[in-house]
Amino acid sequence: MEESKLLYKGKAKKLFKTNDLKTLRVEYLDQATALNGIRKDTVIGKSILNNQITALVFEQLKLKGIHNHFIRLISKHEQLVEEVEIIPLEVVVRNVSAGSFAKRLAIPEGQELEFPILEFYYKDDSLDDPIINGDHIKILKIATEEEMTTIKNEAHKINQLLIELFEKINIRLIDFKIEFGRREDGTILLADEITPDTCRLWDKKTNDHLDKDVYRRNIGDIVPVYQEVLHRLEQTFN
Amino acid sequence: MEESKLLYKGKAKKLFKTNDLKTLRVEYLDQATALNGIRKDTVIGKSILNNQITALVFEQLKLKGIHNHFIRLISKHEQLVEEVEIIPLEVVVRNVSAGSFAKRLAIPEGQELEFPILEFYYKDDSLDDPIINGDHIKILKIATEEEMTTIKNEAHKINQLLIELFEKINIRLIDFKIEFGRREDGTILLADEITPDTCRLWDKKTNDHLDKDVYRRNIGDIVPVYQEVLHRLEQTFN
Repeated sequence: MEESKLLYKGKAKKLFKTNDLKTLRVEYLDQATALNGIRKDTVIGKSILNNQITALVFEQLKLKGIHNHFIRLISKHEQLVEEVEIIPLEVVVRNVSAGSFAKRLAIPEGQELEFPILEFYYKDDSLDDPIINGDHIKILKIATEEEMTTIKNEAHKINQLLIELFEKINIRLIDFKIEFGRREDGTILLADEITPDTCRLWDKKTNDHLDKDVYRRNIGDIVPVYQEVLHRLEQTFN
Repeated sequence: MEESKLLYKGKAKKLFKTNDLKTLRVEYLDQATALNGIRKDTVIGKSILNNQITALVFEQLKLKGIHNHFIRLISKHEQLVEEVEIIPLEVVVRNVSAGSFAKRLAIPEGQELEFPILEFYYKDDSLDDPIINGDHIKILKIATEEEMTTIKNEAHKINQLLIELFEKINIRLIDFKIEFGRREDGTILLADEITPDTCRLWDKKTNDHLDKDVYRRNIGDIVPVYQEVLHRLEQTFN
């Protein structure tokens, strides 16, 4: 890899320009955060796990027809992705009540939802990522109505595919957060990551948390937990 | 008035059953609250003003074809209304950025919005009335999709009529909150109140607050301010 310019530093990864105008290098970081970055810890080994988990999940989604930014792994903690303009929306899909949702609406954690629920959060750390509705998205010019239709349809499709994928490794997909990007030609692409940082994953038999709640709720070390998720994925899909 | 049974005690009014099964008596209270009831003060004279303001506004809206619960005033601080099943939604319409909206999305207070924005809050004091979207409304079975279509259309119509009404008395309608009820036959009806407690009203020339922000922000006494609103309304519409 030649020298490359830092484009963006997030809470869990850095994005670098490459010599190819359309390609970015993503470097996953050994860092865990919670409470919008107020809590922050070094977690050795996390970068390697999330880099590999997201690569495997994005590859599986691509096989099922979900366009996404993933190109290929280039090291244990780095991957190449297609450069897109990130739409500043955190798209959350929920199958089971948990976390902030459970508290906000007083729907007990663990309660199956009658249908998958979509939520949109405005990706802006200085505002603490507020939840927003369609009118807000329009007034803030975050995305067009046509783009929102695509995003909603894609989110539901991705949810269905991820439920099936995790089902195969005895994991219940509780909820997850995804982000989308816009190509120069206007097409919408799944971007960012899909990892135990961005999904709630419960073991089907024990209901154990196999995700970042282990860190958020101080249940234990996340490295063995994320390792378990990667291990199950590799056993079934590699 | 005969003895009547207290049905509901809110922050600004009490609702009583009457001998007529379909009619409730509303008693406005001399009380102002903020921060979801954490701050509370007795404000002598407020009940009379809000009772008369909401009566006048609901009458004007009825003349323009907006079905609502108002029947008639029965004393300075009491009115009769049709009994409906209140839908637990606070429907907020915004024409200009202000208050929590301005902070939440970093749109400066006073900035005209390109189009009126609708927001829905789940009316539940124990949850602090969280903002919700269409999926939440559906999963919580707050209202059917058909009812939501009616509510959205009515809210936009009411907004247009209220803008024109307040325009006539040199007041800019910044935003407001309304509630709807359901008749036994399923029809949807505007209910609750429309007063300076539930609207942001700015004087067209001075931009002075003619609403509860005078109390919320400790700008001064609200009684003379609410009196001014009632006075202007009466001069133009009585």
